[in-house]
Amino acid sequence: MSGMELPAVAPLDAVAMTAADARQARLTKPPGSMGRLEALGAQLAGITGVCPPPLPEPVAVAVFAGDHGVHAQGVTPWPQEVTVQMVANVCAGGAVVNALARQVGADVVVVDVGVVGDAPPHERLTTAKVARGTADLTAGAAMTPDQARRAVETGVTHAYRLVDAGYRLLVTGDLGLANTTPSAALIAALTGADPSEVTGRGAGSEDAMLAHKVDVVRRAVSRLDPDADPMTVLAEVGGFEHAALAGFLIGGAARRVPVVLDGVIACSAALVAAALEPGVVAYLVAGHRSQEPGATVALRSLGLEPLVDLDLRLGEGTGALLAVPIVQAAARMLAEVATFDAAQVSQA
Amino acid sequence: MSGMELPAVAPLDAVAMTAADARQARLTKPPGSMGRLEALGAQLAGITGVCPPPLPEPVAVAVFAGDHGVHAQGVTPWPQEVTVQMVANVCAGGAVVNALARQVGADVVVVDVGVVGDAPPHERLTTAKVARGTADLTAGAAMTPDQARRAVETGVTHAYRLVDAGYRLLVTGDLGLANTTPSAALIAALTGADPSEVTGRGAGSEDAMLAHKVDVVRRAVSRLDPDADPMTVLAEVGGFEHAALAGFLIGGAARRVPVVLDGVIACSAALVAAALEPGVVAYLVAGHRSQEPGATVALRSLGLEPLVDLDLRLGEGTGALLAVPIVQAAARMLAEVATFDAAQVSQA
Repeated sequence: MSGMELPAVAPLDAVAMTAADARQARLTKPPGSMGRLEALGAQLAGITGVCPPPLPEPVAVAVFAGDHGVHAQGVTPWPQEVTVQMVANVCAGGAVVNALARQVGADVVVVDVGVVGDAPPHERLTTAKVARGTADLTAGAAMTPDQARRAVETGVTHAYRLVDAGYRLLVTGDLGLANTTPSAALIAALTGADPSEVTGRGAGSEDAMLAHKVDVVRRAVSRLDPDADPMTVLAEVGGFEHAALAGFLIGGAARRVPVVLDGVIACSAALVAAALEPGVVAYLVAGHRSQEPGATVALRSLGLEPLVDLDLRLGEGTGALLAVPIVQAAARMLAEVATFDAAQVSQA
Repeated sequence: MSGMELPAVAPLDAVAMTAADARQARLTKPPGSMGRLEALGAQLAGITGVCPPPLPEPVAVAVFAGDHGVHAQGVTPWPQEVTVQMVANVCAGGAVVNALARQVGADVVVVDVGVVGDAPPHERLTTAKVARGTADLTAGAAMTPDQARRAVETGVTHAYRLVDAGYRLLVTGDLGLANTTPSAALIAALTGADPSEVTGRGAGSEDAMLAHKVDVVRRAVSRLDPDADPMTVLAEVGGFEHAALAGFLIGGAARRVPVVLDGVIACSAALVAAALEPGVVAYLVAGHRSQEPGATVALRSLGLEPLVDLDLRLGEGTGALLAVPIVQAAARMLAEVATFDAAQVSQA
């Protein structure tokens, strides 16, 4: 993409990962008995370059909010004004993402990258509107190339800002009425899956609306040149929060901080990020498996297995927040559990 | 069981559960979008009889420890002395259960209900040995009827003690070399499953040892009268920690406190508890799906779906602890999320 320089993402530290695996085998537990937590611990060692890895805290969930021209196509039963209303609700601490963030000790920040309306100013809210909503992706490109670039850069900047403020675990969040539609379009375009396989009911589409939504996604994707580069795909069929999240993932990875993915919006953004910078995937943790079918298609394409699977389909960052204590437990296990020698425990 | 009076377990409070479902529908999120967390919130309301339910905290994990005569049959590659060594390790705070308990803010207590050796005294440790290990279940009954009764009563007593001390979420833990063997025998006996379907590798049995273990379980179960009552099944093929855990579940339910199940040892104990008092199941939360195949068979029989599935097979309470923040999040969501009216958010 002309005019945009993405930060470099280094590979994971193989020495720290090997040290983590060796340490797991000396801890007072049967080898391998902590399953995926052991792999997660090694990933955190590789990300931070230290074994045992530091406890990934404090935690910030960044809720990127935007509106979508495709809302006019009737792809959701909810009015568009809900986006700005929910921005205010999250700022006031009343949304599900706030309750779950309090549960796991995470701070919530909101970044308006393209909401149509204006929420009242709030200390949690950064206004960085690229525009007041994207254009309708059924009629043409959702974003201009310049808009897409600026949204990605906003995401990178906010990852840096949070890491500079001391956060050591980043969590993706999103708000945006109709945003499962561009998510499905991005996933179809970037994985080759049929729109019918990756389009879901979002916040509550009934059968007829779902069929219409699949058609909307199909029309959007059919406009794309099969050889389009990832920034062009993003601009044509994505959204401002998708672009910002892609940048956020790359920014976190560039600063060697793990990022926990929420649902289908984050997963579609991760496909964009991985297409721009394949090295980013090693820094990602799939927080949960959303009920939206596109999330599973995207995670499979990325080679990521989610930590939690509780039939959630809310977004906002909620599913990813439920995975935060699991990620922290993986680091804590490596750091705090006694070895067989130290605890004088016999071995098999 | 003559001589043992089990406490009564009341049904869940249907009014509180209906109120919880109604409240979920008014919270600022698409109806049903928080999936299994919504059902969990309603269960907590039903258990406590209040909507919204109080945050289930503080949390205690009770690690019941015992040894098993069947260890002599070579069903695990680990020496029996590891049980008492691990009791000391948990008391010292060095085991995985301690690290994960610190992660989720839970307190750890250890109850020795039948370890062969003696760990040094510790403020975390209660010594309530029924005997120094059970008898070998391949040769005859693992416990006398009186031993089984005393172990169950110890579990009930410890649930009461923790609830009286203020704990509002109980978590099952266990320590006991060879204890996946009596777990498999209990599950086979109480569900009718074949021993080959419910016997796993435990802490690391290789193929030949696993085949031998299946045979050991088959011999134990074949001794049982098909019409044996649950206390007889428990005494014949169970273990002290299994009996204590069954009592712990009943005690927690009787005091209207939710109990989170760990892996296969807890799941087999839950089958015993449910056979003694079917009402207890409504108070249980399946923390995770252990890699041990018997755990899944037991959970299916109980009608419980686990919250976490991370290929764990350690025990101690570790998998259940990872589910604690999810359980708390369910209560917190009901209590703290704003309604559509209060937050002035439009609806579909």
